[in-house]
Amino acid sequence: MSAGTIYGLGLGPGDPDLMTVRADRLLRGARHVAFFRKAGRKGKARQIVEGLILEGATEHPMNYPVTTEIPLGDPEYNRQLAAFYATNTEHLAALARAGEDVVVLCEGDPFFYGSFMHLYTRLCGQVPVEVVPAITGMSAAWTASAAPITWGDDVLTVLMGTLPEEDLAARMTTTDALVVMKIGRNFEKVCRALRRAGLYDRAWLVEYAAMPGQQVRRLAGADVANVPYFSIILVHGQGRRP
Amino acid sequence: MSAGTIYGLGLGPGDPDLMTVRADRLLRGARHVAFFRKAGRKGKARQIVEGLILEGATEHPMNYPVTTEIPLGDPEYNRQLAAFYATNTEHLAALARAGEDVVVLCEGDPFFYGSFMHLYTRLCGQVPVEVVPAITGMSAAWTASAAPITWGDDVLTVLMGTLPEEDLAARMTTTDALVVMKIGRNFEKVCRALRRAGLYDRAWLVEYAAMPGQQVRRLAGADVANVPYFSIILVHGQGRRP
Repeated sequence: MSAGTIYGLGLGPGDPDLMTVRADRLLRGARHVAFFRKAGRKGKARQIVEGLILEGATEHPMNYPVTTEIPLGDPEYNRQLAAFYATNTEHLAALARAGEDVVVLCEGDPFFYGSFMHLYTRLCGQVPVEVVPAITGMSAAWTASAAPITWGDDVLTVLMGTLPEEDLAARMTTTDALVVMKIGRNFEKVCRALRRAGLYDRAWLVEYAAMPGQQVRRLAGADVANVPYFSIILVHGQGRRP
Repeated sequence: MSAGTIYGLGLGPGDPDLMTVRADRLLRGARHVAFFRKAGRKGKARQIVEGLILEGATEHPMNYPVTTEIPLGDPEYNRQLAAFYATNTEHLAALARAGEDVVVLCEGDPFFYGSFMHLYTRLCGQVPVEVVPAITGMSAAWTASAAPITWGDDVLTVLMGTLPEEDLAARMTTTDALVVMKIGRNFEKVCRALRRAGLYDRAWLVEYAAMPGQQVRRLAGADVANVPYFSIILVHGQGRRP
């Protein structure tokens, strides 16, 4: 019997209509569908594909043991996640060895700040693994903003809101175009960094890009009491144009 | 009669299987298909969709008046391109005003260093325009490299090979993960900048990602006499991982 393949299936930003033709086909034919979720939730990736999964397919939810309860820098955070990824690698590899293909649902593009890469590096060499790329959340955000993100020779910098304010401000100061992800509880810090870099007045806040509830606003003057973790802040480049 | 819509249709990196479900549907139903090309060539975007266009659809090739014959900095380059975009804006807007939808084929993601944005900004406010996002060429490149581009808090910097060596080297020095596009005749300069930044030995060269002839090689030691313009150089981030 030949081994099955584990597919890291990029779903894109959230609208199923923005999945690739390949991802759509693989998903609709999949007998095993795995996905990450916060314990007690349905799972964001799983929600995207509601109604697209084969009847009778087996679902394999993978519940994060921890999300924001332990600080990222705490060794306990790493220990729990490493054990979680090891267990799920074993589970998926066993399915593949039994000849089953498994689709692992990935929000956005799997190799761009995704969770699947932690399974990917562990699965490689054990069983066949294939990654299906997808539209990133940031592409959906700049498309929603109705303006090009980069022109001509513009430099684009992508920053995580989890970085220290000092680092954020320094890097914001030297870029032409900017994307900031992982906002959520880092929102105030990111805003301070944008002000220090002189970019605050040019910044846009995009919430739920390509999802129900999509909202695009200038950051300046926006009432932003609760900014979701998956918000994206953009500063558009102003590069060369004929 | 209501106006038609101009669609900036992102095709993604080249493999039609990586087009979105939405782009695939719009394309297959389109009665007018426009695309950029170098005069005398078939056109790269047009080649991607070979076999997918409705029989009897009208094709609207838009031939660049100049590509590399005049330096980017020459005012004549800008003058010729501005006239070209103005003419084609008029042509497409006339079709939309006559009630026709038009699909404009865009390689990669339209708002990410694309040509469509030059039509987009001119069409906005005249007739309905809609952008369909797509997978970027860089996503296809890092997927082809079989390794994640960014982990944890990695900073990603996207640079055009057309920038001066000094700028390239300075920005390469301060990033975690790197993408360099528009290589072609800038290849030697980009390599010198990578060496100055200490990244040369970690760099990968990806040619024709997600296209026939895809090739992924370490930059160091590669025989690279003729590197295509659409090559991409990658340096993968090494960020936090459990």
